[in-house]
Amino acid sequence: MLDHGRTARRLESYVQGAWRAGAGAGKPLANAATGQTHAVISSEGLDFAGALEWGRETGGNALRRHTIHERALMLRAIGQKLMGMKDEFHAESLVTGATPKDGWPDIEGGIGTLLTFASKARRELPNTKVLTEGAVEQLSRDGSFVGQHILTPLRGVAVHINAFNFPVWGMLEKIAPALIAGMPCLVKPASQTAYLTELVVRRILEMQILPDGALQLICGGVGDLLDHLTGQDVMTFTGSASTGQKLRSHPAILANSVRFTMEADSLNAAILAPDAGPGTPEFDLFVKEVQREMTSKAGQKCTAIRRILVPARHEQAVIEALSEKLSRTAVGLPDDQAARMGALASTGDRDGVREKIAQIARDAEIVSGDPGQVTLVSGDAAMGAFMNPVLLHCTDPFAATAPHEIEAFGPVATVMGYDGIEDAVALARKGKGSLVSSVFTNDPDIAAELVVGVASFHGRVMLGNRDSAKSSTGHGSPLAPLVHGGPGRAGGGEEMGGMRGVKHFMQRTAIQGTPRLLSAVTGQWVPGAPARSDDHPFRKSLAELRIGDQIITPARTITQEDVEHFAEFTGDTFYAHMDSDAAKANPFFEDRVAHGYLIASFAAGLFVEPNPGPVLANYGVDNLRFLTPVYFGDSLTVQLTCKEMNPRENADYGEVRWDCRVTNQKGEVVAQYDVLTMVARTWPPEA
Amino acid sequence: MLDHGRTARRLESYVQGAWRAGAGAGKPLANAATGQTHAVISSEGLDFAGALEWGRETGGNALRRHTIHERALMLRAIGQKLMGMKDEFHAESLVTGATPKDGWPDIEGGIGTLLTFASKARRELPNTKVLTEGAVEQLSRDGSFVGQHILTPLRGVAVHINAFNFPVWGMLEKIAPALIAGMPCLVKPASQTAYLTELVVRRILEMQILPDGALQLICGGVGDLLDHLTGQDVMTFTGSASTGQKLRSHPAILANSVRFTMEADSLNAAILAPDAGPGTPEFDLFVKEVQREMTSKAGQKCTAIRRILVPARHEQAVIEALSEKLSRTAVGLPDDQAARMGALASTGDRDGVREKIAQIARDAEIVSGDPGQVTLVSGDAAMGAFMNPVLLHCTDPFAATAPHEIEAFGPVATVMGYDGIEDAVALARKGKGSLVSSVFTNDPDIAAELVVGVASFHGRVMLGNRDSAKSSTGHGSPLAPLVHGGPGRAGGGEEMGGMRGVKHFMQRTAIQGTPRLLSAVTGQWVPGAPARSDDHPFRKSLAELRIGDQIITPARTITQEDVEHFAEFTGDTFYAHMDSDAAKANPFFEDRVAHGYLIASFAAGLFVEPNPGPVLANYGVDNLRFLTPVYFGDSLTVQLTCKEMNPRENADYGEVRWDCRVTNQKGEVVAQYDVLTMVARTWPPEA
Repeated sequence: MLDHGRTARRLESYVQGAWRAGAGAGKPLANAATGQTHAVISSEGLDFAGALEWGRETGGNALRRHTIHERALMLRAIGQKLMGMKDEFHAESLVTGATPKDGWPDIEGGIGTLLTFASKARRELPNTKVLTEGAVEQLSRDGSFVGQHILTPLRGVAVHINAFNFPVWGMLEKIAPALIAGMPCLVKPASQTAYLTELVVRRILEMQILPDGALQLICGGVGDLLDHLTGQDVMTFTGSASTGQKLRSHPAILANSVRFTMEADSLNAAILAPDAGPGTPEFDLFVKEVQREMTSKAGQKCTAIRRILVPARHEQAVIEALSEKLSRTAVGLPDDQAARMGALASTGDRDGVREKIAQIARDAEIVSGDPGQVTLVSGDAAMGAFMNPVLLHCTDPFAATAPHEIEAFGPVATVMGYDGIEDAVALARKGKGSLVSSVFTNDPDIAAELVVGVASFHGRVMLGNRDSAKSSTGHGSPLAPLVHGGPGRAGGGEEMGGMRGVKHFMQRTAIQGTPRLLSAVTGQWVPGAPARSDDHPFRKSLAELRIGDQIITPARTITQEDVEHFAEFTGDTFYAHMDSDAAKANPFFEDRVAHGYLIASFAAGLFVEPNPGPVLANYGVDNLRFLTPVYFGDSLTVQLTCKEMNPRENADYGEVRWDCRVTNQKGEVVAQYDVLTMVARTWPPEA
Repeated sequence: MLDHGRTARRLESYVQGAWRAGAGAGKPLANAATGQTHAVISSEGLDFAGALEWGRETGGNALRRHTIHERALMLRAIGQKLMGMKDEFHAESLVTGATPKDGWPDIEGGIGTLLTFASKARRELPNTKVLTEGAVEQLSRDGSFVGQHILTPLRGVAVHINAFNFPVWGMLEKIAPALIAGMPCLVKPASQTAYLTELVVRRILEMQILPDGALQLICGGVGDLLDHLTGQDVMTFTGSASTGQKLRSHPAILANSVRFTMEADSLNAAILAPDAGPGTPEFDLFVKEVQREMTSKAGQKCTAIRRILVPARHEQAVIEALSEKLSRTAVGLPDDQAARMGALASTGDRDGVREKIAQIARDAEIVSGDPGQVTLVSGDAAMGAFMNPVLLHCTDPFAATAPHEIEAFGPVATVMGYDGIEDAVALARKGKGSLVSSVFTNDPDIAAELVVGVASFHGRVMLGNRDSAKSSTGHGSPLAPLVHGGPGRAGGGEEMGGMRGVKHFMQRTAIQGTPRLLSAVTGQWVPGAPARSDDHPFRKSLAELRIGDQIITPARTITQEDVEHFAEFTGDTFYAHMDSDAAKANPFFEDRVAHGYLIASFAAGLFVEPNPGPVLANYGVDNLRFLTPVYFGDSLTVQLTCKEMNPRENADYGEVRWDCRVTNQKGEVVAQYDVLTMVARTWPPEA
């Protein structure tokens, strides 16, 4: 048994720079498996308006002094330390009713998500304070008035109201993008399992890696917190649709257009495709996945499978295979190795699930499991929040509403048969918007038809088949690089999705002005902005280089001999370079033309500085476009301008992006691209 | 005088495939300048639920059968025809109180926005039904499980509730991105000026270019329309913050997480920077722009300047210069060439503005104009909704709240002084979120500090200075390529922004699965998906080519002679190619390496098909990365695979994107990029 002899822990909140206990006796929180009081929670008397203000000022100002990469590196350091503490978190996780296997996606999954964000941000975003997004837009014919979008951190607090079922992951997946964006966070975990979130936040704050105010925690109710939200704050909510609706309609959120993201449990479907009948690997994978999703975390996952859509002719086979597996699922104490499924998070949850099953059963019959009867391998059915999996079968899923709309947030799902792919799509849509559905098929055409059919009702669709049987991350796992959230019933929100998630905490602003002024705002050179042509810019280290540093090369004439020689040397004897008549028949050329790669090669020959210097390597080229054909006798000049500088933290060099334009003797741009180089921080390098 | 002898027109709605008149007597709509009844409006008795269902089914199904480019071409055709009808629209526009000059941004601006969307969509989006977004994400080490995001049109109706002040632009800027996305629209213009919207919609539907159901119109109240919205519908609202809050909190919108965009009038600022004192071109531009924004459309623009922030030391100079200009602004009948400013949209509007001025005047004093007194060059002050511009001055803008929060939606603004840039930023932020602010400065550092300081409170910031005096599109003009909308007070929404606006009407869905199944869904080849190596793919026209068509070339060894020859030929004698000791000192190389451009050139030599054929030209290269150094003696092979095909409407060729991977003898990828080609639709070309 867990918890024997322990005194209930009094949870604290971390607000306005200190750990503070709420007033009053507090609310007891029970161990899910034993019913014993594990912790006591109260946020009474805390100053919520003060916490928000502390976050906005102390936390926000400190975070915004750092660059994106600096903030990402803080998270990397935190994630690495947390990973070393995971045993402590796993021990506490058992109290929630979760088995060690259930704890993995929460604890390792949460820390992994933090680390993924930290590494993706440094790989995919520049090391700056202001981000640009999209192309420079020409807003005037003469190029003197241009526009571009920038992203800056919102100057408020990101308030995260989290669900009880992922006390670690739920907190980390939300603070990671917010902190990288430069927004301080205030986390309010669901009381039920707040002891685990509190423990992790305590460990994070003890590291003293984050500036004060960047992360605050409220254990207990939110009091008048919402009344104090402004248009610069963000609120994210994960939990039940009904609570979400209440928060979303709060007067301060409506009046201030507070950015509000909601991620609610939904009636997610698993679809067995017509090709995946009994005997196919996909059929077996399907049955296994449904059982796994119904029983992991005792089915208390927003992404769990609730609706099992199968070809009508395979309905009985599915019910038999699933019933067999579900009835063999051992339920017991989370730390009992014999138990495959632990407890629900509370007896209140269990009672609620039983009630919802009764509602669904008006449109369906129970074909496996008995909601009123609990069979355990260990633990006390009277004290712990246990129940066995329940499978229902709905024989008229088009007429039925309950299985599509009522969610029993536990180990419960309903089998429904369909005829033909159109019907499968129509049934999936009857969920009115889901976080995720999965489709099991090995047929690419069926995959395309089903996925495109259901896509607009889903935030994520997983395809399962034999070839990803071992590598698939599964129906239930939201992943840091992919969006999590869904339309309609699922709340209409979007989280994670890689760097999309970071932008959620930033304001997109269109900036218009002359190239010179726009450059000053974005820190990137824009064509038309001033350029400086003193020393060769390849002789300048990151310390000396400035955006706008430029070289304009002497001209080089491309001759017929050059083109023929290049063709022979490289083997690229495409007719447009070699044969005048054939070239003239081509809709794009008036005669034989130079190779594009020859133009780029000659351009490099014109701008390269041959001697050892701070430019260490050309590691790539972006957006190369050959805009005007180059004919024999054309004379080419290159204008190369320092466009973006991206010094790396923890390295002696950084990326520099150069705007490269090759023009002919008429001043026409024949080729335009970005040259990507690695440039040393100082030159000569420091010892 | 306008309207003499005309009978009031009875406006109709276009719903469920027919023009329908509402029941009852209807509400009279007055000519803004004369007070005479111009039209009568009613939507009583219309079937709103039926209209939504008609849109979703008839309109949605028809639109989704087309590709993005096909839908964009419909809009181009509509826009071109509308432009030919603009005189008719301008005549009707006079009734709204707008001068011909005021009508330009509404009519030509609206049609231009439609055309810009139509052309940007064909330039920036592929000619497909399903869009992909972002990179393919590796979700497993062995590459057998990958993810990518797709965008598909939401399967509902885009309901646009528009403001009275831009009856044409407001309709077109919203239907353009929605229709391109593949969503049918239901437009509900503000009743006040619905006659102009109705006229334009009538002309559009007469063209019979759009499929039926793609565009519906409600003239009059929305009745129970909102009750029938689902999670697949989208609602956009432009208008007052108070109406927006009401719509946003509608039970069906909350319960179904209906995507809701709001674009509300806001307390936009114009900031005169400290460097832009009297005597500078920026000072003069500032005064001119403020006057223009206060008086165009009689100040009834969501983007109009309401707060005039100036260095305290220049406060008097600004007030004097502005007062002088404002007091000389001739007000009169819209069709009177002597009038520079026309009427407000209604006498009710005028009375409301007078009331708001009185409220602002509690914190400020009127320094120019008299709200109670109307001086006209033509028209009848008793009948038309006329007023003269009013300038206020607030001497303690940090203590004051009214000028930052109360919007008089007319020719009204308040001058406020600031000391130092921090104060200017703080004052701008007191608007609690605006659509746009403008900053007048010629100093890049000041521009950067002011813009970054206010950015998170704004959807758009315009920089004005001498160099863009002639080319600037001005403070008040939202532009199709830039986002329009702002946080907080401005509604928290985002419209337009180029192709961002299209995505607003689509659902983003993360798809996971094997490369083979993912490719089937996206229509793009993904590494790991099946490839076909029969005939050389460059011998296949668009009609024959399939994604996955591949060539794997024989190997070619790069020798020291090759590198030295290339260096000499191109002039690129960078030391890492030429000098072994120097190369070894470079952190990225172990010895002399081949030029990146040499690798790409040899690769082309390996995969090019020399004879005339369907591949017409290589027009560019994307995302070229040199991943592994190539040393002398390394042997290179190229794998080139057809990745995306983008046949153009109305052309004999289309773009084909090839995945190109160059590997060495160890199987390491040394270079990876996309090769972009133009490929003929058929080969040989049809006569």
